[in-house]
Amino acid sequence: MIIVMKEKATREQIDAVCKRLVELGFKTHPIFGQEKTVIGAIGDKKALSSEAIINLQGVEKIVPIMKPYKLVSKELKDTPTIVRVGGVPVGGHGVVVMAGPCAVENEEQLLIAAKAVKAAGAKILRGGAFKPRTSPYSFQGLEEEGLKLLARVRDEVGLPFVTEVVDTREVSTVADYADAIQIGARNMQNFCLLKEAGATGKPILLKRGLSATVEEWLMAAEYILDSGNSNVILCERGIRTFETASRFTLDLSAVAIVRENTHLPVIVDPSHATGNWRLVSPLAKAAIAAGADGLIIEVHPDPVRALCDGPQSLHPETFEYLMTDLDPVATAVGRTLT
Amino acid sequence: MIIVMKEKATREQIDAVCKRLVELGFKTHPIFGQEKTVIGAIGDKKALSSEAIINLQGVEKIVPIMKPYKLVSKELKDTPTIVRVGGVPVGGHGVVVMAGPCAVENEEQLLIAAKAVKAAGAKILRGGAFKPRTSPYSFQGLEEEGLKLLARVRDEVGLPFVTEVVDTREVSTVADYADAIQIGARNMQNFCLLKEAGATGKPILLKRGLSATVEEWLMAAEYILDSGNSNVILCERGIRTFETASRFTLDLSAVAIVRENTHLPVIVDPSHATGNWRLVSPLAKAAIAAGADGLIIEVHPDPVRALCDGPQSLHPETFEYLMTDLDPVATAVGRTLT
Amino acid sequence: MIIVMKEKATREQIDAVCKRLVELGFKTHPIFGQEKTVIGAIGDKKALSSEAIINLQGVEKIVPIMKPYKLVSKELKDTPTIVRVGGVPVGGHGVVVMAGPCAVENEEQLLIAAKAVKAAGAKILRGGAFKPRTSPYSFQGLEEEGLKLLARVRDEVGLPFVTEVVDTREVSTVADYADAIQIGARNMQNFCLLKEAGATGKPILLKRGLSATVEEWLMAAEYILDSGNSNVILCERGIRTFETASRFTLDLSAVAIVRENTHLPVIVDPSHATGNWRLVSPLAKAAIAAGADGLIIEVHPDPVRALCDGPQSLHPETFEYLMTDLDPVATAVGRTLT
Amino acid sequence: MIIVMKEKATREQIDAVCKRLVELGFKTHPIFGQEKTVIGAIGDKKALSSEAIINLQGVEKIVPIMKPYKLVSKELKDTPTIVRVGGVPVGGHGVVVMAGPCAVENEEQLLIAAKAVKAAGAKILRGGAFKPRTSPYSFQGLEEEGLKLLARVRDEVGLPFVTEVVDTREVSTVADYADAIQIGARNMQNFCLLKEAGATGKPILLKRGLSATVEEWLMAAEYILDSGNSNVILCERGIRTFETASRFTLDLSAVAIVRENTHLPVIVDPSHATGNWRLVSPLAKAAIAAGADGLIIEVHPDPVRALCDGPQSLHPETFEYLMTDLDPVATAVGRTLT
Repeated sequence: MIIVMKEKATREQIDAVCKRLVELGFKTHPIFGQEKTVIGAIGDKKALSSEAIINLQGVEKIVPIMKPYKLVSKELKDTPTIVRVGGVPVGGHGVVVMAGPCAVENEEQLLIAAKAVKAAGAKILRGGAFKPRTSPYSFQGLEEEGLKLLARVRDEVGLPFVTEVVDTREVSTVADYADAIQIGARNMQNFCLLKEAGATGKPILLKRGLSATVEEWLMAAEYILDSGNSNVILCERGIRTFETASRFTLDLSAVAIVRENTHLPVIVDPSHATGNWRLVSPLAKAAIAAGADGLIIEVHPDPVRALCDGPQSLHPETFEYLMTDLDPVATAVGRTLT
Repeated sequence: MIIVMKEKATREQIDAVCKRLVELGFKTHPIFGQEKTVIGAIGDKKALSSEAIINLQGVEKIVPIMKPYKLVSKELKDTPTIVRVGGVPVGGHGVVVMAGPCAVENEEQLLIAAKAVKAAGAKILRGGAFKPRTSPYSFQGLEEEGLKLLARVRDEVGLPFVTEVVDTREVSTVADYADAIQIGARNMQNFCLLKEAGATGKPILLKRGLSATVEEWLMAAEYILDSGNSNVILCERGIRTFETASRFTLDLSAVAIVRENTHLPVIVDPSHATGNWRLVSPLAKAAIAAGADGLIIEVHPDPVRALCDGPQSLHPETFEYLMTDLDPVATAVGRTLT
Repeated sequence: MIIVMKEKATREQIDAVCKRLVELGFKTHPIFGQEKTVIGAIGDKKALSSEAIINLQGVEKIVPIMKPYKLVSKELKDTPTIVRVGGVPVGGHGVVVMAGPCAVENEEQLLIAAKAVKAAGAKILRGGAFKPRTSPYSFQGLEEEGLKLLARVRDEVGLPFVTEVVDTREVSTVADYADAIQIGARNMQNFCLLKEAGATGKPILLKRGLSATVEEWLMAAEYILDSGNSNVILCERGIRTFETASRFTLDLSAVAIVRENTHLPVIVDPSHATGNWRLVSPLAKAAIAAGADGLIIEVHPDPVRALCDGPQSLHPETFEYLMTDLDPVATAVGRTLT
Repeated sequence: MIIVMKEKATREQIDAVCKRLVELGFKTHPIFGQEKTVIGAIGDKKALSSEAIINLQGVEKIVPIMKPYKLVSKELKDTPTIVRVGGVPVGGHGVVVMAGPCAVENEEQLLIAAKAVKAAGAKILRGGAFKPRTSPYSFQGLEEEGLKLLARVRDEVGLPFVTEVVDTREVSTVADYADAIQIGARNMQNFCLLKEAGATGKPILLKRGLSATVEEWLMAAEYILDSGNSNVILCERGIRTFETASRFTLDLSAVAIVRENTHLPVIVDPSHATGNWRLVSPLAKAAIAAGADGLIIEVHPDPVRALCDGPQSLHPETFEYLMTDLDPVATAVGRTLT
C-alpha cells in the first residue's frame, strides 16, 4: 500500500501517518519527492483497510498495490478450473452451449425447447422458475412447479439444467432439483445469497451485475469460493451504458480480462446482453472468438408467444443454424464446440 | 400502445398484427403514413406486454404510451405522501435530516454519534447492523447485536432509527427493532426482499440502485406499494458513471423528476454519492435546493478509525456546521429544517 | 410522428395540437384511448421537428417514427458500399487489416513498422501526424513533416495510408498526401471538420465518438454523405463506461447494429478500445467474428520507447502471430483476410 | 511516480526498470514488499510519461503521483480568478446569470429575449450564431449575420454577450464581435480550437465534454492557459449516463471538485443538462447551493416556435420567477445574485 501525501503536507503529518502505520503493524518506507512525499507500507494487508489512513491530516490518497481478490486469482492457482455441471465439463478445451427458454411456462414448451436445443448440440438446459421482473405486474415464474418440470424434462431429454435462485430461503429447494444454480445480474452483490448458494457446493453460474466492474464481479466470486465452493462459472451478460440501440453493451474485453486474471471459466449470454435475437448470432460468434468457455442462449419454441424475453429468444431453427455457424469459429480459435 | 411497422411491411403483415391485437382484446387504429404504418392499440394494458407483438413479422418497434407504474404515480394520488418514522414526518413541509455512523461498531461509538447528531438537529438516527460489503474480508456488521444497540441508544437518546436489511430471512427481526427499514442500493431489485420488507408495514427507505433508471426505481417502489405498504421514502444516492473523481455521480435531476411523477417523499444521501466528506456539505445544500425532503448523512465520532466508510463520514463538529448552513438553504426554498 | 398527450389533456389542448400540425402541413389522426390520447401526424417529416410541438399545452412526449438518417441507410441503398483506399477495397467479401504506429516519430520507426505490417499481411498503413492529446505537454505529432514521411514510406513500401486530420485548416494539406482521412473519436461531432473532409472526396475513416450513440455516429456519417462523399468507413473504437479494467469498452454489438442499418463498411480498432496490447488479439478475433469488415491495429517497432500509446501497441512479431490467428477466424465466418 | 512490479517480477526485471529510470534522469527508491516490489521514481515529471516504462518486462502498473495539470491548479494560484466579460466579473463573491436564446433567429426574437433577461436580472446575454447540430438537416445558425445581430442587440440593450465558436477559421471573426467565446461540449477536446480561441485573449467559456472526466476538462482548460490566456470560465452542462429521464445527468459534485482543485470560476448550464424546462428551476437553485459562480440559462420569447432547443427554453415570465427564487438561495450560501 502506498500513501500519497498532499503537496503541502508537513513533516509532522508525515510522521503521524508513519506512526499510525507502525501501530497497525506495518513497516514504512517514506520517499521524499521534490513536491510530494509518498509512504510505502509493508505488512499484512488484511490488517489495513485504506479507511484507517485516508482521513489522517495531510493524506491525499491511498494506492492499493495488491489485488483485493485471492482465491479466484490466477496467482493462487495457475491451472484452469473445470466445473462439472451434471457431468458436463465447463472450462476445459471444449466450448459449451447452454440453451433454453427464459422462463419455464409449461411442460410442453419446455420439452420442445429441450429436445430442440439438445438436437442442435447444446449440452446444458437453461430455464427460469423464479423470475426477477422489473414490474410486479409481469409473470414471475412457476416457482417450485417450474423446478419440477425442469427436473422431469432433464430426466426425459438427458440434459442437466441450470436455473436461477433469487431468495436465500429457496436456495436449498433449488439445489435439490438443479444441476447448477444461477445467481442473476441483479443479485450479484446480494452477498447473503452468494454465501447461501455457495454453501450448497453446487456449481454456481455467477452473472456479472449490470453495472459491476470486473473487480467487483470477481469479489462476488470470491464470496462463493470463500464459502468453500470453487465451482464457479462466470457469465458476462452486458453492462449498462448510455447506448440504447442494444439493451445492454456486451463487454467482451471483460472475457479476456477475466481469463488473464482468474482460473475460473467464463461464458457469455448474448441474449440478455443484446435483447434482440437478430444480434445473438454475431455476438455469440464474437464471444467464442474472444475466448469464452461457453454460451448461454435463450431459445423458445414460439418466441412470439413467450411470457418473458420473447424479443431476444431464438426460434429452434435459428438456434440450429447458429450452432452450425459456431462450430468453425470454435475450431478457428483452437477449441471444440462440445 | 403504438406498434410501428417497418417501412417494407406488407399489408398482410399489418393485418396479422391487427388480428393478433384483436385476439388479445384490443381495438386497433392503423394509420397509413407515406412510408410507414403505425397501429394504435387501445384496451386493457395489463393484457398486453410488448413481448406478445414485437416478434411478429414486419414489426419494427413498440412504443408504450402508459407509464409502467400506477400506485406510486401522482396521477393516482395527487397529494404528497407523508411517511412517519417513529413519529417524525418525512415528506411534508419540513426537511428532515437522518444521520449516524455507516456501521454500528459498539455502544460507545453509537451513543456518542447519536447524541451529537441529535444535538445538531438530526431527527432520525441511521446505523448499519447488517453491512453488504464488496469484499468478504471486510467488516460485515454486528448483525442482531447491532440492532439491539440501536434500540438501546434510540431509547436513551430519543431518536427513531433506520437500518438496512439484506436478507429475507432477517426482515422480521429487523422490523422488530427498527423504526424504518432500509433497502440498500445493491438490493433495489431484490424483489423478494422488497415484498418481504413491504409486508411488515414499516416505513421503507428505498435507495436507488447504482445503475437503476428513475423508472426502475419507481417500479421497485411499486413492488412495495403493491404489497400493501405505501410508507416508502425514496433515496437518491448517486449513480455509477465514467467519472472517478467522486465515488458515484449524485443525480439531483432525479429528485426533481421523482417529485414531478410521484407522491412519495424523496431524500438524498450525499455521503455515499460522493464518498468524500469534503463534498458532503455542498451537495447536501444542493439537494435541499433541488427539492429533497431530507438528507441521510454519515457521521462518526472518529472517522479516522471507522470500520466502514470513514472517508465519507463527517466528524460531529463538521456535521454541526453543516446543519447550521442547511437551515438558510431550506428557508430559501420555502421550507424548514425540522 | 406520434404525439402522446398527457392523461389530463383537455379536448381543447388536443384540438390545438391538431390545428398546429395542420398549419405545419400535416394530416392528423387522433386516437382517443381510455386514459390518453395519441395523435398520428402524417406529412413531410422535414417540415417538422419535434421541437415545434413538444411545448404545446397538454403534450407529454413526441415519438419519432422515421429514422433521422437517410443517405447512410440500408433503406436507401441495399447493397454494401465498397470504399477503395488507394486501390484496396474495404467493405466487400474480404477483411482488411490496417496497421502501423500511433504517431509517426521518424522515418526509421515508420519504415520498420510499415515493412513489418506489410510482411504480416496488412493492406493499409496507419500513422498519426497530427495527434490530439489530452495534455498540452504531450507529444503533439510531427505535423506536415509526418505527412511527408508517410507519403515517402508509402511509395517505398507500397501500402496506402490513412492519417488523422484535426483542424479544418489542414484538411486540404492532409488530403494532398493521404489515401484516406481519419476523423478521430474526439472530433466525431466536429461538424465543420466532417463537412470539410467530406468535400475532399477522399475516403473518410470515421471513428465513433467515445460517448456517441450508434445513431449519432450514423448522423455524423450522414454529414459526410450529405457533402457529396459516400466513401465513408465507420470505425468502432470503444465507448466510455464505468469499467476501468480496459481503457474503453469495445462495443461489438454496434458492429452488428451498423451492418443491419447501413450500407457502409465498418471496422474495429481494438488497440484504442482496450489500451492494452494483451487484449488486442482476443478482441481482434472477436471483431471479425462479429462481422467487422476490417481492423485497425497499432504496431510499433519498439513499444517500450513509443512516444504515444506504447502500452497498446503490438510488437511486429506479436502482430505477425495475430495475423496468423485471424485468418481462420475470417474463414470461419465465410470471409477472407485479404 | 510509483512503478508497481508484478508479483513474479524477477530481480533482473526490477533492476532493468531502475536502470531505465536512471537513464531518464530519475532517482529510484525500490521498496521490496512481501509479495510485490514497488519503485518510487523522483525527478522532473515532464521527462517521463508512464508510456516509457509501462511496457518493460515485469511492470504491472504505473501510479502517477502528481496531477497532470499545473496552470489551472489551486496549488499554483491560491486566489480565485475573476474573469471579466465586458465588465461583468465572473468568479468573485457574486453569482452571475447569463441568459438568452439557444440560437439567434432574427433581430426581433433576440431583442425581446435580451430585454427580458436584462429586466429579470441577467448580466450577460447568450445566443448561438454557429450551431453544432447532430443532424445536417437541422437549422445550423445564422453565422456571421447572427454575430452582427448579437452585437447590435448588445449595444442597444447594454448586455455583453457570449457566443459559441465551432471552427478554427472563424475564431477571429467571433472574437471581433463577442465579449466571451464559448467552446461547446462537443469541442472540448478540439485542441486546435482551444489553442486558437485561447490566443485571442478573450474570456473563454469552456463547457465540459459530455463524457469528459473532470481531469480531462481541466486539461482542456490547461491548453487555454498554456496559450497564455487565463480568462477561462468552466461550465458544467451534464454528462452522458444511462439515465434517459433527463437529457444528460447534471454533475454538481463536479462543481465542488473543481472549486477544490482550481482557481477558475465555474458555472452551470441547467438547460442543456436537463433538456426540459420544468427541471431548470430546481437544478439552477441546486447549482448555486453547490457553489457555482453563475448560471447560463436558455430563454426564448416563444419556446413553442423556437428553431432550436425549445423544450428546454424558459419563457421570459418563467425566467423572471426563477430569478426571484434564486436570490434567497444565493444569500443562503453567503453570496449575492449580481
